[in-house]
Amino acid sequence: MVILVVNCGSSSIKYQLFNMTDESVLAKGLVERIGLEGAQLTHQPAGKEKVVLTADIKNHSIGIKMVLEALTHAEHGVLKSMQEINAIGHRVVHGAEKFADSVLITPQVMDALEECIDLAPLHNPPNILGINACAELMPKTPQVGVFDTAFHQTMPKYSFLYGLPYEAYEKYGVRRYGFHGTSHRYVSQRAGELMDEHITNLRIITCHLGNGASIAAVKHGKSVDTSMGFTPLEGLVMGTRCGEIDPAIITYLMKKEGLTPDQIDTYLNKKSGVLGLSGISSDFRDIEEAANEGNERAQLALDVFAYKVRKYIGGYVAAMGGVDAIVFTAGLGENSVSMRDKICQGLEFLGTRIDPVKNNVRGKATEISVDGAKVKIFVIPTNEELVIARDTEQICANLV
Amino acid sequence: MVILVVNCGSSSIKYQLFNMTDESVLAKGLVERIGLEGAQLTHQPAGKEKVVLTADIKNHSIGIKMVLEALTHAEHGVLKSMQEINAIGHRVVHGAEKFADSVLITPQVMDALEECIDLAPLHNPPNILGINACAELMPKTPQVGVFDTAFHQTMPKYSFLYGLPYEAYEKYGVRRYGFHGTSHRYVSQRAGELMDEHITNLRIITCHLGNGASIAAVKHGKSVDTSMGFTPLEGLVMGTRCGEIDPAIITYLMKKEGLTPDQIDTYLNKKSGVLGLSGISSDFRDIEEAANEGNERAQLALDVFAYKVRKYIGGYVAAMGGVDAIVFTAGLGENSVSMRDKICQGLEFLGTRIDPVKNNVRGKATEISVDGAKVKIFVIPTNEELVIARDTEQICANLV
Repeated sequence: MVILVVNCGSSSIKYQLFNMTDESVLAKGLVERIGLEGAQLTHQPAGKEKVVLTADIKNHSIGIKMVLEALTHAEHGVLKSMQEINAIGHRVVHGAEKFADSVLITPQVMDALEECIDLAPLHNPPNILGINACAELMPKTPQVGVFDTAFHQTMPKYSFLYGLPYEAYEKYGVRRYGFHGTSHRYVSQRAGELMDEHITNLRIITCHLGNGASIAAVKHGKSVDTSMGFTPLEGLVMGTRCGEIDPAIITYLMKKEGLTPDQIDTYLNKKSGVLGLSGISSDFRDIEEAANEGNERAQLALDVFAYKVRKYIGGYVAAMGGVDAIVFTAGLGENSVSMRDKICQGLEFLGTRIDPVKNNVRGKATEISVDGAKVKIFVIPTNEELVIARDTEQICANLV
Repeated sequence: MVILVVNCGSSSIKYQLFNMTDESVLAKGLVERIGLEGAQLTHQPAGKEKVVLTADIKNHSIGIKMVLEALTHAEHGVLKSMQEINAIGHRVVHGAEKFADSVLITPQVMDALEECIDLAPLHNPPNILGINACAELMPKTPQVGVFDTAFHQTMPKYSFLYGLPYEAYEKYGVRRYGFHGTSHRYVSQRAGELMDEHITNLRIITCHLGNGASIAAVKHGKSVDTSMGFTPLEGLVMGTRCGEIDPAIITYLMKKEGLTPDQIDTYLNKKSGVLGLSGISSDFRDIEEAANEGNERAQLALDVFAYKVRKYIGGYVAAMGGVDAIVFTAGLGENSVSMRDKICQGLEFLGTRIDPVKNNVRGKATEISVDGAKVKIFVIPTNEELVIARDTEQICANLV
């Protein structure tokens, strides 16, 4: 089966084309600056030269059309016709309580997605645009929605409810949903494989650490808690997001600075995090470099970040009554040797320690804890696109 | 030395009179509804009948005057004249970064307290009124301020800073301060005594669980982290306070319900917590009763509360790299056998467990973990008034 995986953002489309026979990537690419000046498509066919095409890409529909043309192009294409695409899998950010699994797109599903817009006003509309654009161009090709929130729908009620009036949950759906679910699912399953143990016997803490960052407690294969909540703002300190703060700070700063609700949202989402703490960058590589050069606030930002991750790990160990493995993934988790080391300092009480030699690794699935550690520590590169392709294949297997 | 301990709220004055020779309480009482209809003083002299005096108590100054009259009254008094009071200790809620210890009140200190009002607009003004009222009535008696925040001033910067622009800290003092410091200090020291071990060798987690609730990580006698933050709203779910939530919820609910910053503050401080979750009461006794009768939302509120406490314990174990003792104190912590049991379920990985027989105790300082537990669990009644009296005695020893 050939499956196209599509991830639409507000002004971008990321895509990967999979040959599911061997799960190889036939091509991948990115449409950027949709609706803006300087829009372009960067297309990378496997084993061939990268192509960059500039064009006036007014909307997602035109963007998807360009992707399909690139995939079937005589020179840099990898397919003869778009009929060769058997199914399309879409990343969808928010499935609320409606979707605990990936789902075949139907008119009913589209209605449900529309209803979720209120909870993800920035993320779900471009996902819907992408699905509609594909439906328009390839009306007979089945499409599947894979949700960032779905994996976390197994959280028990005492874990996903906030200490707010119960009516806020009933009336407005205010609860913890959690995000990065596809990633947490993938790396927790990979950890089970690497441990040669069935996941239903394991308690795993998965640390998805990138510009957006979240941690999940995966008990016996099911998410029981995660650090992002009602939105992706909660939890860890991130590139530009504040993570958890005293709720009273928000109205305090609104009054002090004369900010509207939208302005304080921007402040907390775009100007905070390690960018706000360090004053340097939202990119951890820049911050690590500055810290190495002796910049105190850069060092402080790293210290704050690592400390919060360590506390979450401890909290989730308590939540699961123990832990068998800790997994680091995503940009920072896969690549920052020093950050992994920093986070794990002080976790010896769990019966584990990082092996500095094994830890000297980037972007490779491997154990990094000392030999014989009671709790294994892993680096596992995430692959959300592959999960989307697999789910799509499974759901469409009987259709095509 | 005879010391009067005073704790002024917005419409109340709590007091205790100590004979520091044996730390006995000579009298204690409460002035309620200051400035309101139905104001009264309830005075309890040691070993005598309780007295309730109703009066028109317009302000804190009149309230303090009534307290001094009650203490020196021919029948229900315990002193011959107020000259016998050697010093007065005041509970002060917020000392910001200005006070890391208790302090003799001077005009300079009063100026500093005025500067802290911005950070504790509800709490510090009545504290200041109380100090001024005492100064007016007993101008020659030394007064001492004992701060709720002081004990937590030892937190390292990576622990007390939020993931916000650094300027919010520099310009507005937005950081974690922590509260209940006097209680966390007292019970952590008592735990050291009960363990017959110097506190500088111990890592202790103190759970002050009442209508207001906070947890602290006390490493080698110093607070290194605590759950309340910039204000007492953060951290655990409390009687009516929400504790930690996704910051994005605040503006979401403001928009949905058309609330002003002050209205959402009231919502989060007065209508949330276990009251909002259960829909029944902010009093844990009422909620436990309802849960026992099968009320599902009451049970849910207890489950959410216990789960968050357990996660904090785990987080602070990771923060300190291990733990030697866990202490329960304050109304719920001292008295709820079932809540202590519920919280500690799943902490066996730390090498500890509650002994159900030992745990069947209320308001008594005792160990409740199983014999030989690696981590000791204690119930220790708090005594903030005694700490205030001791600090006052120590500071005034050379003055009087």
